[in-house]
Amino acid sequence: MSSPMAAALLSISLLFVEVGGVFIRYNTTAGVVDGKLNVHLVPHTHDDVGWLKTVDQYYVGSNNSIQGACVKNVLDSLVVALLKDPNRKFVYAEQAFFQRWWAEQSDMMQEAVRKLVDSGQLEFVNGGWCMHDEAAAHYIDMIDQTTLGHLMIKKQFNHIPRVGWQIDPFGHSAVQGYLLGSELGFDAVFFARIDYQDKKKRAADKSLEVIWRGSRTLGPSSQIFAGAFPSLYGPPEGFYFEVNDNYSPVQDDPHLYGYNVNERVNDFIDAALVQANVTRTNHIMWTMGDDFQYQYAESWFKEMDKLINYVNMDGRIHALYSTPSMYTDAKYASNEAWPLKTDDYLPYANAPNAYFTGYYTSRPTFKRFVRVLSAYYLAARQLEFLVGRKPGLTTFSLGEALGVAQHHDAISGTSLLNVTNDYTKRLAYGASQAEKVVNLAIPCLLNPDEKCASSTSLIKLSQCNLLNISYCPSTEEISDGKSLVMVVYNSLGWDRTEYVRVPVNDKEVVVRDANGNSLETQVIEMDNTTTNIRNFYVKAYLGELPKDSAKFWLVFKVLVPPLGWNTYFISKATKKEESTSDSHTSTISAADDETVEIGPGPLKITFSSTSGKLKRVVNHRTGVDLLVQQNYLWYGSSPGDKQDSQASHAYIFRPDGKPPTASSGSVAMKVVRGSLVDEVHQQFNSWINQVTRIYKDKENVEFEYTIGPVPTDGVGKEVITRLTTSMVTNRTFYTDSNGRDFLKRVRDHRDDWNLTVNQPVAGNYYPLNLGMYIEDENYELSVLVDRACGGSSIHDGQLEIMLHRRILDVEGSFLGEALNETVCVDNVCQGLTVRGTYYMSIDQIGNGAQWRRTNGQHIYSPVLLAFAYEDERNWKSSQITKATSMDPNYSLPPNVALITLEELDDGTVLLRLAHLYEAGEDVQNSALAKVELKKIFAQKTIKELKETSLSANQDKAEMKLNWRVEGESRDNPTPPLRGGPVNKSTLVVELGPMEIRTFLLKF
Amino acid sequence: MSSPMAAALLSISLLFVEVGGVFIRYNTTAGVVDGKLNVHLVPHTHDDVGWLKTVDQYYVGSNNSIQGACVKNVLDSLVVALLKDPNRKFVYAEQAFFQRWWAEQSDMMQEAVRKLVDSGQLEFVNGGWCMHDEAAAHYIDMIDQTTLGHLMIKKQFNHIPRVGWQIDPFGHSAVQGYLLGSELGFDAVFFARIDYQDKKKRAADKSLEVIWRGSRTLGPSSQIFAGAFPSLYGPPEGFYFEVNDNYSPVQDDPHLYGYNVNERVNDFIDAALVQANVTRTNHIMWTMGDDFQYQYAESWFKEMDKLINYVNMDGRIHALYSTPSMYTDAKYASNEAWPLKTDDYLPYANAPNAYFTGYYTSRPTFKRFVRVLSAYYLAARQLEFLVGRKPGLTTFSLGEALGVAQHHDAISGTSLLNVTNDYTKRLAYGASQAEKVVNLAIPCLLNPDEKCASSTSLIKLSQCNLLNISYCPSTEEISDGKSLVMVVYNSLGWDRTEYVRVPVNDKEVVVRDANGNSLETQVIEMDNTTTNIRNFYVKAYLGELPKDSAKFWLVFKVLVPPLGWNTYFISKATKKEESTSDSHTSTISAADDETVEIGPGPLKITFSSTSGKLKRVVNHRTGVDLLVQQNYLWYGSSPGDKQDSQASHAYIFRPDGKPPTASSGSVAMKVVRGSLVDEVHQQFNSWINQVTRIYKDKENVEFEYTIGPVPTDGVGKEVITRLTTSMVTNRTFYTDSNGRDFLKRVRDHRDDWNLTVNQPVAGNYYPLNLGMYIEDENYELSVLVDRACGGSSIHDGQLEIMLHRRILDVEGSFLGEALNETVCVDNVCQGLTVRGTYYMSIDQIGNGAQWRRTNGQHIYSPVLLAFAYEDERNWKSSQITKATSMDPNYSLPPNVALITLEELDDGTVLLRLAHLYEAGEDVQNSALAKVELKKIFAQKTIKELKETSLSANQDKAEMKLNWRVEGESRDNPTPPLRGGPVNKSTLVVELGPMEIRTFLLKF
Repeated sequence: MSSPMAAALLSISLLFVEVGGVFIRYNTTAGVVDGKLNVHLVPHTHDDVGWLKTVDQYYVGSNNSIQGACVKNVLDSLVVALLKDPNRKFVYAEQAFFQRWWAEQSDMMQEAVRKLVDSGQLEFVNGGWCMHDEAAAHYIDMIDQTTLGHLMIKKQFNHIPRVGWQIDPFGHSAVQGYLLGSELGFDAVFFARIDYQDKKKRAADKSLEVIWRGSRTLGPSSQIFAGAFPSLYGPPEGFYFEVNDNYSPVQDDPHLYGYNVNERVNDFIDAALVQANVTRTNHIMWTMGDDFQYQYAESWFKEMDKLINYVNMDGRIHALYSTPSMYTDAKYASNEAWPLKTDDYLPYANAPNAYFTGYYTSRPTFKRFVRVLSAYYLAARQLEFLVGRKPGLTTFSLGEALGVAQHHDAISGTSLLNVTNDYTKRLAYGASQAEKVVNLAIPCLLNPDEKCASSTSLIKLSQCNLLNISYCPSTEEISDGKSLVMVVYNSLGWDRTEYVRVPVNDKEVVVRDANGNSLETQVIEMDNTTTNIRNFYVKAYLGELPKDSAKFWLVFKVLVPPLGWNTYFISKATKKEESTSDSHTSTISAADDETVEIGPGPLKITFSSTSGKLKRVVNHRTGVDLLVQQNYLWYGSSPGDKQDSQASHAYIFRPDGKPPTASSGSVAMKVVRGSLVDEVHQQFNSWINQVTRIYKDKENVEFEYTIGPVPTDGVGKEVITRLTTSMVTNRTFYTDSNGRDFLKRVRDHRDDWNLTVNQPVAGNYYPLNLGMYIEDENYELSVLVDRACGGSSIHDGQLEIMLHRRILDVEGSFLGEALNETVCVDNVCQGLTVRGTYYMSIDQIGNGAQWRRTNGQHIYSPVLLAFAYEDERNWKSSQITKATSMDPNYSLPPNVALITLEELDDGTVLLRLAHLYEAGEDVQNSALAKVELKKIFAQKTIKELKETSLSANQDKAEMKLNWRVEGESRDNPTPPLRGGPVNKSTLVVELGPMEIRTFLLKF
Repeated sequence: MSSPMAAALLSISLLFVEVGGVFIRYNTTAGVVDGKLNVHLVPHTHDDVGWLKTVDQYYVGSNNSIQGACVKNVLDSLVVALLKDPNRKFVYAEQAFFQRWWAEQSDMMQEAVRKLVDSGQLEFVNGGWCMHDEAAAHYIDMIDQTTLGHLMIKKQFNHIPRVGWQIDPFGHSAVQGYLLGSELGFDAVFFARIDYQDKKKRAADKSLEVIWRGSRTLGPSSQIFAGAFPSLYGPPEGFYFEVNDNYSPVQDDPHLYGYNVNERVNDFIDAALVQANVTRTNHIMWTMGDDFQYQYAESWFKEMDKLINYVNMDGRIHALYSTPSMYTDAKYASNEAWPLKTDDYLPYANAPNAYFTGYYTSRPTFKRFVRVLSAYYLAARQLEFLVGRKPGLTTFSLGEALGVAQHHDAISGTSLLNVTNDYTKRLAYGASQAEKVVNLAIPCLLNPDEKCASSTSLIKLSQCNLLNISYCPSTEEISDGKSLVMVVYNSLGWDRTEYVRVPVNDKEVVVRDANGNSLETQVIEMDNTTTNIRNFYVKAYLGELPKDSAKFWLVFKVLVPPLGWNTYFISKATKKEESTSDSHTSTISAADDETVEIGPGPLKITFSSTSGKLKRVVNHRTGVDLLVQQNYLWYGSSPGDKQDSQASHAYIFRPDGKPPTASSGSVAMKVVRGSLVDEVHQQFNSWINQVTRIYKDKENVEFEYTIGPVPTDGVGKEVITRLTTSMVTNRTFYTDSNGRDFLKRVRDHRDDWNLTVNQPVAGNYYPLNLGMYIEDENYELSVLVDRACGGSSIHDGQLEIMLHRRILDVEGSFLGEALNETVCVDNVCQGLTVRGTYYMSIDQIGNGAQWRRTNGQHIYSPVLLAFAYEDERNWKSSQITKATSMDPNYSLPPNVALITLEELDDGTVLLRLAHLYEAGEDVQNSALAKVELKKIFAQKTIKELKETSLSANQDKAEMKLNWRVEGESRDNPTPPLRGGPVNKSTLVVELGPMEIRTFLLKF
């Protein structure tokens, strides 16, 4: 009984099969059609610049066991697929990958790709080095990495990206919307990740697409069309066509079993109508791609070809190959009025217990490394410009590494540990290259007569990267003969006074300025905390223990002119010069029932000697007097629970619901007092140490914390510091947007929808890059930070910032790896220790901005120190010891910062000036500022000046599109204060509040 | 303390990174180099023509969740990759896929591909429709499917495949080696799967590559260079480069982290030297591909480009893009002497308990369906030729479906059930198309005056596919008026007498021949076994129950001329014609202590009425007299054990080690006797039934078994039938090779190595397609089968064949699905029942071959029956009722069969004649045979005759390569007996033993 024998009879009637199919030419010449729903198919790939694999592994396609991803395959196969049909289109974002690929191509291939870009088949979106994070990235880094990509695209293709494409970052910042959007000349920005509650509400009232005014100050003059995708950045379910993916191909060959054209067309139309239902106008966009898709591009295009052909044959709706800019134009042409959106889209949650606010702090040392190098890159480029570029030396590697580091899985701390290490390696290499630039530029600057063209200089400079842990061989061994020469460079446009701290082994040292005057110094005994981490980390990084621990910190004050330098000479004291600047150290036990006050100047802070805690802050100059408590606490991380397995992890902050644990009861104090600085050294518990510090002329408190190794005792720990006052703050606090604008935050509230509060702590965290503040009717309490981190005000009158996280749970993490950073010596690993500083100031209401803005610049751009051993006399006779590169009588106005000064490849000079204040932020400083370029470049002559958009890839122009906003007329009633055109003879640049102006100069 | 801060210092020294790489043109212009080890990189993909997915699913890439595989991607991307570099090469085998893809291509693309074939970049290997199985496939099917592909390749590319490429089939048959190898004109054949013990030994003595003489008869005149790969058919470990695979790409960009050129070159050389160590000459082949690889072909080629470039720069060894034919030429050029290999490479085991001998029987009903349609395809093409091809009607669909079915996961029974069902569907559709051809051809043949050009004929014929389960509506309802006209077609070249059995509902029927003579008939009451399966399976296949069960079998004898037909008329008996041909039925209870003898002619068999079992066979004509027992037993399938988890499954036969369970003790007999046939009906147990049958003029015993549903009681069952005699057989038995040559088998022995016996049963199983026999000094006991199955002789004097398998275990199976075939009616499923027949003959020693060869042809090609209801008188006056298409006085010699007679697309006629005997097999028949073509085609004139190689794609020629064999001189001492050139005027074709000659004729 043969079962198949007769299956014949049943199946004959079902199907017919003949030899082979026939060649079909699919009609993909579509374009937009009026009166029908237009489905814009936007082919794209989302290529993370490092995440589960390193950026190089992603590029070459190694380690595919972790993730099948080879960007080279994507781009190789893409070009072939695009050449096959001129109607096919593709958008590509990440220049970190594209530029690598481009450099490997033959002239013929480059020519072919140029044609694809010219014809619009290949369009660059975003166009920066990476798709930067929007919470943990600093605006200067965002500008730099975007400029890096935009200028290359401009040079290679004469192409200007039109659209922002932030499809994966975890929430969206105000600065992204206006500065890295409108000010770049973008017509639109698209993204996927906004709060799930927000998205639901916006889908319901068709407000996923809006006109976004990210800047309160610049308002409608800096708005952009912003589209949030209905789901994520992939196609609708069933329309993924990646090679080897499980999808249902359009089968239009009646000779094969499985002909399904009608079914697939119906599926397509169904999916389109679902999306049309949440979208205004007759245009919807399908993002045809996903992470590292198009490994074999033809696999996608062959399916889209067929769908476009058959859907358009069907005729009910219309499908076309498109790009975000084509889509934007279609939206604009519809003449629709769009809802208005202000502020930002932060924080981001994709589920009730999944607030992406942990990553604001994750990997705090990496975040600090990026911040340090960001400023170093700025200073190095200044120096490079000042002496002219030298062959073979370049800051490009650092710029590239910083570009990579801004990626939304890099600076965010959401990549695997070994990938983070790779980022670090790239940065370290970049820094080493930039250091070479600096080490040559400074001698050239100091002695312009020397031959500076060669890459070798007579003066060997060294810089100390590990100063923060007291490791600096240059300063540690001051010999009897030569002096230690310290050149201090100031990259700010202002005169500046700073306290410098260098480790020394001998307390009998003297510091002289260029005029031979001995400076007041203070020598502070090295504390154990620093010595311990110095020994462990120097061994961990350099492979060997430092010979000796430094015994003291030598503290002294330096004065440096704007964009200029000063020179100091440190040497062993002769007997007659005897250093008298020792500190007085006293140890206060908790038993004393009194208060301890420190503060060498008008600012005094009082500690309870019972608890050892900060109690009161008084500024005798400003009259501020406020009770302030300060402490360290930790939230226990949730490992997930029965209702929701979501754990706290690298991305997500989900505390376990208990009140945070305070690190200590009462704390002993070691008080150090001296002529320059007062310090209180305290151990809060076995793994938290703090130095509270007030310098003589500085009216703020520094809190230098050393946290770690965080114990792993079964509960993940999210360590915060909290300042508690009695201020009446009405749930309100202010946090910065990428270090630039301050945004008002109201606890348990969102302006855009009725917030359902699921996470009363995590849901109120916001990213900090500059700092945060609270205010009441009397005072402003401000905190500035030295790196990206998260912060909030969970109770009125309080401020807290998260400083460190160590969590062993992984449930719900994409990484499958715990956020458990360790450092190893001889195979013994311990949890990562983080050291940093935050700064506090309490000001009379209305006066805080000035402290925040000015000190924000100081913190971002510390003075650059370079050391050499030379004969003091020789040095002084051959080198310029103190000077500014500007007009000696000029400095930038206090409300303006020089954020870019860089000589480009073609000799053109890129200059960016930034107004530091928002409208109304400060009585004096929120005014129009004027900068005299002739005085900045006092030693050169500006031959040509061209104002450009932010990334310097196009002339500065009015916004091209004038969108309609619901409830507004198109006429802009009160334009914001902006600087006018630059007079070519006076060359004075005006800047309105929050304005950044970008120029290309030729000298 | 920032961990990355100083990682700088460590890493700077390790690497350097600058912007981008550079374009490198890799040198792949290699060719063979003397004096170095040459690594022939042979890019290929192994595309199963159905396995885990159906052939169409593989082609279009649907159901990728089962297996990521889309052949369209392979071929699309391959062409692009080959066009990119003229040095790149690729070999492709499976025309079932290639032809489909080809038909879809544009003229431009076809032109491009033609150039690739012309230049040798793309080479076809094997070139048949599929890579056929070598154990369960019949040689006629192997020839047909190869011819199908070869003729298309010839037509499209004027290309002739040179190399056999059987890289995946599970062992290799003698017929493959000589017939589907040398006789095709192939210079070499390559494969991967030979017994693991054999492979180990051959690697040790460098005899993986041999000169293979598969045919004892044709010997050195039909030898071929045969290479077994050292492992399977993939590249060495670490050299898989499939898109998204985890491999280490050659990273030659010093700008990226991970530069590894030296490391990869060393890896390459190491792997090459390992292989060189087991290979003769300076040439080794790397099979650069695997199952469904090259989804994105560039992914492989880009790595191979780099490896060739850098390995050749290194210079220690030499790498090149190559093909198996280039490799073969290099081997030949080396002038090496090769070891000789005879016989075959069966059975195949890849581990001690993993004998691929289960699949010889797996899915027995599918194997039968293929066999039935194979013969039907042969007959249909004959009929098509005889009347000329008609527009719109073609046997192509059946040929294609049969081509697909020969795949080594199709006929083998080693695909998933739903894939097997897809094969069945294709076959059923193909059969339905061929049936149309037949239903038109027969009326044309019978009445050449009728207009036969149209596809409709006046006579409506029907054929009965379910006759084996007594379902045939045409015969079941014989009305009073018209006669049931039965046309019997004989596709053999000999006169023939057969007994026909048709189901009828009325025992009062008469059968008349064309002259009006009533025939002797016998009416046998329908048995319950048949009625039950008829009811269930007709419902299962047709969706509805047949109206009534047929009540009787009507048996009568038909006589048909060669390549001709005869006509019979069945009608209700008038009173005077009263049918007297009833059978006498008696039931024998086991109590009777006597024997029961049946046999209407000289052959008598005796049953013990105690046990009900066969006891003795006597042939009064030949003097044979032998005690023979017959029974059914089952081996319990091993589910795997602690030592080895390997289970018995679709591929593997691994019995559980216990003696097989006999199906019954004593069995009741129902004895049917009549004038034409005697039958013994027996139920061996609740799921095994048998009818033992002897027809009047036939000197063999038919055993018709009905087995199933096999119970699933925790133990898988592998059901065998066993014949036991007292013959002294010295561990020796004979099994056929693909239905053609008989090979001597010795239990627990291999000629090529010292066999370690791990599986005393499974390791002695061999595939049967025609049958098997044992012999002693007196007798030959032969069994012929009606489909592919496995058989052995586990004890001397015994023969056993495996008839059915049902196993629920899957451990160690690639399929992950049990071999558990079920058939469902109204969602009630039961295990598959298999019905079949095997044939036994006992002959005096030396006389068995004649029975086996002649009856083998009868069994393979049953008479073709077609039915119509017509007025007997009208029919006779308008139709030719009996005729041969040959000269009426001619028939083929008894030792020659016509195995192909087919009109090709261009009107040329393909003729194949096969000598049926081996040298020395039969005293008379092993002689040179002569066939007179003029008499075969008596009604036509042969205008042109061209002898070709087996697949008709090239002129018949001497072997091109004259290989050296170890220990032999190159001169062939005694050439085998082969037919000489055909005299163009006499047109007599001579055939030596085992010779198959192929001709293209024009009339």
